[in-house]
Amino acid sequence: MSSEPTADTTANGADQATLRLRRVAIDTYRENVAYLHRQCPVYRAEGFQALSKVEVRWQNRRMLAVVNVVDDAALVGPGELGLSTEAFLDLGVEEGTSVCICHAQPPVSMSAVRRKIAGERLTAEEFMAIARDIAERRYAKMEIAAFLVASGQTGLDRDEIMNLTRAMVAQGQRLDWHENLVADKHCIGGIPGNRTSMLVVPIVAAHGMLIPKTSSRAITSPAGTADTMEVLAEVCLTPERLDQVVRQERGALIWGGTANLAPVDDVLISVERPLGIDYPGQMVASILSKKIAAGSTHLVIDIPVGPTAKVRHMSEALALRKLFEYVADRLGLFVQVVITDGRQPVGRGIGPVLEARDVMQVLQNDPDAPADLRQKALRLAGRVIEFDPDVRGGDGFEIARDILDSGRALTKMMEIIEAQGRQTKRFELGPLTHEVRADRAGVVIGIDNFQVARIARRAGAPMDKGAGVDLHVKLGASVEVGDLLYRVHADFPADYGFAISLVAEDCGYRIGTADEVPQVFAEF
Amino acid sequence: MSSEPTADTTANGADQATLRLRRVAIDTYRENVAYLHRQCPVYRAEGFQALSKVEVRWQNRRMLAVVNVVDDAALVGPGELGLSTEAFLDLGVEEGTSVCICHAQPPVSMSAVRRKIAGERLTAEEFMAIARDIAERRYAKMEIAAFLVASGQTGLDRDEIMNLTRAMVAQGQRLDWHENLVADKHCIGGIPGNRTSMLVVPIVAAHGMLIPKTSSRAITSPAGTADTMEVLAEVCLTPERLDQVVRQERGALIWGGTANLAPVDDVLISVERPLGIDYPGQMVASILSKKIAAGSTHLVIDIPVGPTAKVRHMSEALALRKLFEYVADRLGLFVQVVITDGRQPVGRGIGPVLEARDVMQVLQNDPDAPADLRQKALRLAGRVIEFDPDVRGGDGFEIARDILDSGRALTKMMEIIEAQGRQTKRFELGPLTHEVRADRAGVVIGIDNFQVARIARRAGAPMDKGAGVDLHVKLGASVEVGDLLYRVHADFPADYGFAISLVAEDCGYRIGTADEVPQVFAEF
Repeated sequence: MSSEPTADTTANGADQATLRLRRVAIDTYRENVAYLHRQCPVYRAEGFQALSKVEVRWQNRRMLAVVNVVDDAALVGPGELGLSTEAFLDLGVEEGTSVCICHAQPPVSMSAVRRKIAGERLTAEEFMAIARDIAERRYAKMEIAAFLVASGQTGLDRDEIMNLTRAMVAQGQRLDWHENLVADKHCIGGIPGNRTSMLVVPIVAAHGMLIPKTSSRAITSPAGTADTMEVLAEVCLTPERLDQVVRQERGALIWGGTANLAPVDDVLISVERPLGIDYPGQMVASILSKKIAAGSTHLVIDIPVGPTAKVRHMSEALALRKLFEYVADRLGLFVQVVITDGRQPVGRGIGPVLEARDVMQVLQNDPDAPADLRQKALRLAGRVIEFDPDVRGGDGFEIARDILDSGRALTKMMEIIEAQGRQTKRFELGPLTHEVRADRAGVVIGIDNFQVARIARRAGAPMDKGAGVDLHVKLGASVEVGDLLYRVHADFPADYGFAISLVAEDCGYRIGTADEVPQVFAEF
Repeated sequence: MSSEPTADTTANGADQATLRLRRVAIDTYRENVAYLHRQCPVYRAEGFQALSKVEVRWQNRRMLAVVNVVDDAALVGPGELGLSTEAFLDLGVEEGTSVCICHAQPPVSMSAVRRKIAGERLTAEEFMAIARDIAERRYAKMEIAAFLVASGQTGLDRDEIMNLTRAMVAQGQRLDWHENLVADKHCIGGIPGNRTSMLVVPIVAAHGMLIPKTSSRAITSPAGTADTMEVLAEVCLTPERLDQVVRQERGALIWGGTANLAPVDDVLISVERPLGIDYPGQMVASILSKKIAAGSTHLVIDIPVGPTAKVRHMSEALALRKLFEYVADRLGLFVQVVITDGRQPVGRGIGPVLEARDVMQVLQNDPDAPADLRQKALRLAGRVIEFDPDVRGGDGFEIARDILDSGRALTKMMEIIEAQGRQTKRFELGPLTHEVRADRAGVVIGIDNFQVARIARRAGAPMDKGAGVDLHVKLGASVEVGDLLYRVHADFPADYGFAISLVAEDCGYRIGTADEVPQVFAEF
């Protein structure tokens, strides 16, 4: 068709669509939001609104953002384009710059998402395209939710999970340690106090194997390994500093957030968590993509099983193990999956300062050190050590125990702390305390992982490192009326009040008779 | 368990969690957003952030909102709680009021959504709970997306669709006209220029039947019935005024948005549209819930079928018809579903002023009036008239034609316009025009409904009532090189530019040979 402008106009639409960029100090958490004034001429042209996304352009940079409409010129004027904090940083252009905006098409890969919704199987290329669009923030949260739900549960077969994992690895950075054996361990989560990494890393590094562990901060739990390690040392290291530490000490315990490893995973998690969905397939893709991006070659995966753990039945744990093995094998990652006792929290403390205390007690061979944390860490470290071709199958546990008992693990930990940079702030246990006591005599037959974690979180963990819950008795312990079950610590009155009101709803402990203690699901 | 505060604290958490309410002039489009300063003590206590939702409380009012974190005290200070425009209005509390905020649990009905994701069938009670939580804005958009995708396509059986419809009707207002026969008509949409309601209503009302038609404004189309009627008359009527008009004239054409009819539908649509999902089950629940809430008892539903219509195959149209019939029968609504020719736009004009012109030409029996619009309106009006127990089956069309030809429909329309309030603004056709001409000789074999609608929208419709597209030739017409196909009208240069660039991509017309004209899918 030919298309000729008629004589009565000389307008050039494209020239009209420029706006002055403005930073809006609102953190919209991994979703780009563009703020346009309702009277903005470009917004008017957009048609109608808040439903739509715009594409922001400056030179060869492109960004998609969801539109929010502003009626206050003090915030964003009619000739301005406001961008939320992260979006502004991502675009990387100064305030006041003239940027173009235009109609955004939904990301092309949404057509694949729609096919997945309709129950179709997606190809490797389609997963690649979806991951690329997600990494470039072309998806709004509702679109991410559509993808997650559509591919949830039974929606992805194991080859699709492998392709999704591969696609997630392909976005973002990938570390290369230039060694043949780069060890790692990872727990699927859900068990408070489970800080075995802070023991496994110094033990394995003391054995001489390379174990540069990158961890996350807590998102919905009361402490991540990075939050707890930060009580003792710096955890935000530049890639150069990390490299230095790892070369020197063979191990490190740092926050992985600075390295832009598998950024797609971070975006997916920002929707999965509030939706409370956690599918095996997505869990496998999430964990393996992060580990492969971090340069790991040999990985021990810990799947705790218990009535209040993420995985509640042995059959489910076995299926998950097969899935990890299938995908890891095909992506060239050696995995050992261990199924562990997830009936209750590990150790005593829940919250960064308390968990750091437990870890240090174990390293110092303190007779009061929590035995379960020590045992579990030794077993996991033993499995990692058995990746060493010179170690005979079955000898790992004893090697790990020798390293710990001899004080070499403690020495290694202190060296790692010094290398990363000793923490200059001194974090104290929260001074506001509340004691929760047994209201009947009997035996502790249940400690709800989820509820205890929530209480610690409400008390302020992990933001307030001294906040949390300190368990005094564990499963199987006999208690009298009035015996201390646990102590809540908080730094701030508001947090303290929130935690107490949650304790009042459900304190997380159940007391009954000895025969009601749930059986151990697994012993590895 | 007993739970005793220890002596070293007297803090009361609940008292700490009050903030001064502030209105933030940002329209977040049917999602409540709460703005909290990063240093706000309550936000700190919340644990971690933007992932989470808060519950805002004032006296016995409750509201859930997604948290956005603000780093600019000019926007929201540390002691303040900002609420987005709609959320602020919903809460209905003055600025400066002390409101409480606390941890929001995910809406209870999300557990049912998770069961639906897992492929389970939901009960009537579960749909009720979901609809209630959605109506109370307890769902974030990503949660709505999860519900929609999980229940999309094959995910809802027909009884579930019925239960969803019933649950949607149960929220919000329901009009009662105190008559046994309240007629209505509805088209599932997708065909530009299809303004039959503005003809059916005066014809049916002139026949004496009650037809109080509430319509939507365009969301993704270039004009809704409400947008077009507004060219001629007021369409935002209070319930009292509407009642008066309907009593007096037997018919009305108003915007349904003021009446809070089936508000759940509005929320679902705000997510369906940007996601581009449109499942038969949700369409049926959406349309029937709105109509039942509007008090209709007898409804004609128009399903256009064509290669660029919403429904592309006859088999699909028939399945959709059965679904409408199944649900409507069980909810006590009489429906007649007609399948119509959706191969191309109806009439000539696309955009409010242009469509109002077409409608008035038909009412005035102008020899230039678009014949297809007239025919379709007469047939639909005939079907509605046949709901009248005194009309013999098959006689409706002729009764409608007599009413139209005699000028009684025009008279009735003028009376309805006067009763609703004649539009005081005078809307003119957009002065910026662009002519699109044939670049080859042949026969028009395709007019893409979707593309033509997009062009009209880009030109400014429906916000600029004079903007749009005026079709000069339709399917089957012979054209020579240079013959006018259609004319684009716009009010503003930016819109004009956007529309022209879209025309350059794809003008929406296809020219070929006479035997390539697609066959009529349906003739009712």
